[in-house]
Amino acid sequence: MKTQSVTVEQSLFISTEAMLKHWQGHRNLTRRVIEAFPEEKLFSYSIGGMRSFADLAMEMIDIAVPGVEGLATGNWEKVEEFDHSKSMPKTKEGLLELWDKVTQIIDETWPKITSDRFQKVEIAFGQYENTNYNTLLYFVDNEIHHRAQGYVYLRSLGIEPPFFWER
Amino acid sequence: MKTQSVTVEQSLFISTEAMLKHWQGHRNLTRRVIEAFPEEKLFSYSIGGMRSFADLAMEMIDIAVPGVEGLATGNWEKVEEFDHSKSMPKTKEGLLELWDKVTQIIDETWPKITSDRFQKVEIAFGQYENTNYNTLLYFVDNEIHHRAQGYVYLRSLGIEPPFFWER
Repeated sequence: MKTQSVTVEQSLFISTEAMLKHWQGHRNLTRRVIEAFPEEKLFSYSIGGMRSFADLAMEMIDIAVPGVEGLATGNWEKVEEFDHSKSMPKTKEGLLELWDKVTQIIDETWPKITSDRFQKVEIAFGQYENTNYNTLLYFVDNEIHHRAQGYVYLRSLGIEPPFFWER
Repeated sequence: MKTQSVTVEQSLFISTEAMLKHWQGHRNLTRRVIEAFPEEKLFSYSIGGMRSFADLAMEMIDIAVPGVEGLATGNWEKVEEFDHSKSMPKTKEGLLELWDKVTQIIDETWPKITSDRFQKVEIAFGQYENTNYNTLLYFVDNEIHHRAQGYVYLRSLGIEPPFFWER
């Protein structure tokens, strides 16, 4: 598929450098939400039949790693290949360690993604056709959305979540 | 306070035009979450002592209108002036009508905000010092975060929320 190129006439809202900071700021907050859960509740607690927060955090990881690679290279892992049934850590400590590894992978890969790449239309994960900037925004939005489920879980357990505005 | 100007060396992640579309896409989804609530639950239902979804939607409105005005003009309403105790609609229909008025205000005001304005550091609402692009991202993030509370409310009421990826 031929993809479109960025036109220089577009007026900048946010730069690629600032967007990395924005994403990692959100990931830092999500890390503190993971930390706030009692270990047992992290892997088991649910409201309305929804997934545990550990499961949601693993979804974020499953998206972020092949996601940032896809954005950098244009090679997108198929969504069908997502399966954390074996790779999911069994402890909070293990999950936090994995989270930190992903933070490093994102930081290392991001500088390889040009502004031009972000303006291209691609089929992310073999299924979701969009401009790459929208695909990345979707990763962040999805994280905010699921993390907020975690906030409700914590509140309903009587636990004060971290401040939303601290990144 | 002297504010900094945009440097042409910054590489574009997303343009101002695309960011408006992104925000309004999220607002369109939030509108459908308001619609999904049974009227009585919209104004009363809560988990863990948190606010009703009508109250959360009013917060989004309270931020969006003076927010887009502040971004355009640099004149920021003080956060202490936020008070929807009198202006809050009493019905779902009234809330949706107000929501649609805000959609129009945003569309009309947005083109007045230059790229240069978004790169400036200002004190939003007389209290939150940040670059204006981060301030706008915060509005959107706050909406995603609170809307997700609404998703949990709906799920716990046995109601299927709208698809997150439809904007």
